[in-house]
Amino acid sequence: MKSNVIAVMLFSSFCYAESSGGFEPASSNVWGAAYPRVDASGKAEFRIKAAEAAKVQLNFWGNAKIDMVKQPDGFWTATTAPLGPGFHYYTVLIDGAEFSDPGSHSFFGGGKDASGIEIPEPGSTYYLPQNVPHGDVREIWYLSKVTGTWRHALVYLPPGYDTQTKTRYPALYLQHGGGEDETGWIKQGHANFILDNLIASGTSKPMIIVMAYGYARRAGQVDPDLTGKAFGSPEMMKAMQEMSSTFEDDVTQALIPFVDSHFRTIADRDHRAMAGLSMGGMQTFQVTFNHLDLFSYIAGFSGAAGQLMLGNRSLDPKTDFQGALADPAAFEKRVHLLWLGVGTEEPARMKDGIKRLHASLDDAHIKHVFYESPGTSHEWQTWRRDLKDFAPRLFRQMGRRRRS
Amino acid sequence: MKSNVIAVMLFSSFCYAESSGGFEPASSNVWGAAYPRVDASGKAEFRIKAAEAAKVQLNFWGNAKIDMVKQPDGFWTATTAPLGPGFHYYTVLIDGAEFSDPGSHSFFGGGKDASGIEIPEPGSTYYLPQNVPHGDVREIWYLSKVTGTWRHALVYLPPGYDTQTKTRYPALYLQHGGGEDETGWIKQGHANFILDNLIASGTSKPMIIVMAYGYARRAGQVDPDLTGKAFGSPEMMKAMQEMSSTFEDDVTQALIPFVDSHFRTIADRDHRAMAGLSMGGMQTFQVTFNHLDLFSYIAGFSGAAGQLMLGNRSLDPKTDFQGALADPAAFEKRVHLLWLGVGTEEPARMKDGIKRLHASLDDAHIKHVFYESPGTSHEWQTWRRDLKDFAPRLFRQMGRRRRS
Repeated sequence: MKSNVIAVMLFSSFCYAESSGGFEPASSNVWGAAYPRVDASGKAEFRIKAAEAAKVQLNFWGNAKIDMVKQPDGFWTATTAPLGPGFHYYTVLIDGAEFSDPGSHSFFGGGKDASGIEIPEPGSTYYLPQNVPHGDVREIWYLSKVTGTWRHALVYLPPGYDTQTKTRYPALYLQHGGGEDETGWIKQGHANFILDNLIASGTSKPMIIVMAYGYARRAGQVDPDLTGKAFGSPEMMKAMQEMSSTFEDDVTQALIPFVDSHFRTIADRDHRAMAGLSMGGMQTFQVTFNHLDLFSYIAGFSGAAGQLMLGNRSLDPKTDFQGALADPAAFEKRVHLLWLGVGTEEPARMKDGIKRLHASLDDAHIKHVFYESPGTSHEWQTWRRDLKDFAPRLFRQMGRRRRS
Repeated sequence: MKSNVIAVMLFSSFCYAESSGGFEPASSNVWGAAYPRVDASGKAEFRIKAAEAAKVQLNFWGNAKIDMVKQPDGFWTATTAPLGPGFHYYTVLIDGAEFSDPGSHSFFGGGKDASGIEIPEPGSTYYLPQNVPHGDVREIWYLSKVTGTWRHALVYLPPGYDTQTKTRYPALYLQHGGGEDETGWIKQGHANFILDNLIASGTSKPMIIVMAYGYARRAGQVDPDLTGKAFGSPEMMKAMQEMSSTFEDDVTQALIPFVDSHFRTIADRDHRAMAGLSMGGMQTFQVTFNHLDLFSYIAGFSGAAGQLMLGNRSLDPKTDFQGALADPAAFEKRVHLLWLGVGTEEPARMKDGIKRLHASLDDAHIKHVFYESPGTSHEWQTWRRDLKDFAPRLFRQMGRRRRS
């Protein structure tokens, strides 16, 4: 082996990651990147090459920016306080301009391929790969007449799907949040490993999970020019409603028919669930309440439905959600599970809307599950826990119904 | 809909992409990003926000850096000369520090999540999604005893795999290049669409494609400290050989058994091929020539085998490749296809090694296919064409053999 060219190619991604002072490279790093690195307390060390920059900062979204310190070798370094277990988005500000850290894999969030760092949660293995049967995650492309485009989605198929070729499965449609995309529930959320583990322990029924791309532009639609329009302006609200209803049509008219014809689903409402986080929670409420003929299990993970659909007021069960809640007994018969979750440390603007919806549902005697994730904010650790609580409750009802 | 919070979330990735002056947002952009954008001639316009930077450059790898110009609004802009059809990696240099463009999706190359721009090739649809049956791409995780880790791979299953449950398929193992990863052949290469189209037209036989992660560290291995060691130094060569042989063991001892037990392959050498680009071509030659009991179709796409295994000398068929080429008739009987490809515009250091190997094979009367991609360099457009030429030649031989 003599060629330096090959050595350069081979080693371009093979620098040497070492542990030092109790710090280990983060599991979210690219191959061989020594930084960022994490210690047992959850502190993280970062190292960024920017020899000529005047100011470099770490930007953990929603938190105060962390100034990095320039070292004599032209690298900037910083050590954080303990970050808390789970996945955290971040970017790097180079003289105020926002970029991703080349040492980190990228994770789609905030509308871009952002950096993320995984901090281990001591004792938690439920979202990590274990030596149990693994389902596959498939990338699918379907041609949507609604958008006039090929659309990409991910589909989790439970262990045994390939070998038990007569078995049909229920399906959970599971949506990402605003600024994220269809890859989020696998790359950030580890939904596949969560379900592998829940299915292996007998806690969850085997199910298919469909993760769609949450943005949609109707075929032939030209985006409106929103230059200078404020958030909340009538023009922007109209554009949002249009995207939201396009997504609703795409899910119900293109995606579900594709999934039901392509995979061995049990294609009825008793065996179809939808859940989503944040913006995806809002979309879930819109899609499911407009199509109760298609869905019977509904969940919002830190879901925006409270705020979006109710604003600052309480629920009016007689009129909201197309009046589906007007008769609690009828609703309970029709919707097998209504599930709401929120992290105890979420910003008040998130938490208050969800708690208000929860209280409104209680007042209206609408049976539902309300789950609070202790110590977590509007973040993936909350949503991993949500899925762990929600998935085992799915597709239990129709068993009873069938026997009755 | 009243909440600004939701609007911010929803629109964080929904800015408005418009065409202007014949320029359209690149297909490789993130949702809604107006830049970079491309015109019909292949010129591209870039726009980067870095108000406080003193110098911003575009870095198309292997080419001269392009200075961007600061505009009064704090954005830097540049328009390139025509880039040539296909996929091009790039990064942005902010005062000399290298980052990815937030407007572009990221593509793993150069050991990081780099930016890339797709320039359409007029008249070429073979690597684009068409309205034909689509195979699925699956993400799989397998526990490798060789590395002691869960390893991620992608697997393309041809259209009909799910419905024709008695059918078994041949398998092509297809490797990425140095600095890239297992996602490259799908995200950059569009291998799935290439095969969908070739299978739909009857040009290729339906096959499974397995795309493995090309780096491997043996279980319990500690990376050597190569600080200060030159490329080509004995220490580095030893580390390279170790990684290469670990990868070989992972493919043959962990991945192939997993694939053959997990998917409906025809698990014999007549129905197993391996190909790889650049570093992956080197790996292909190492794995296949050491395991001719497992493989009978072999290809190097701009493959590094010539340089790596032969250095600057010509092939010695009596001793190189474990003497497998010593008897051309025996080799031809054993290896159904040996395929080499190179782009006519590749750097001399790449092209010369491959052409030397090609000439050596001719001199030794070793039957092989040599393909030159006109006008392309060491880039994905070459490798897409390689796959388009190579895949239709696969798994033809065993049909004849079976009938004999």
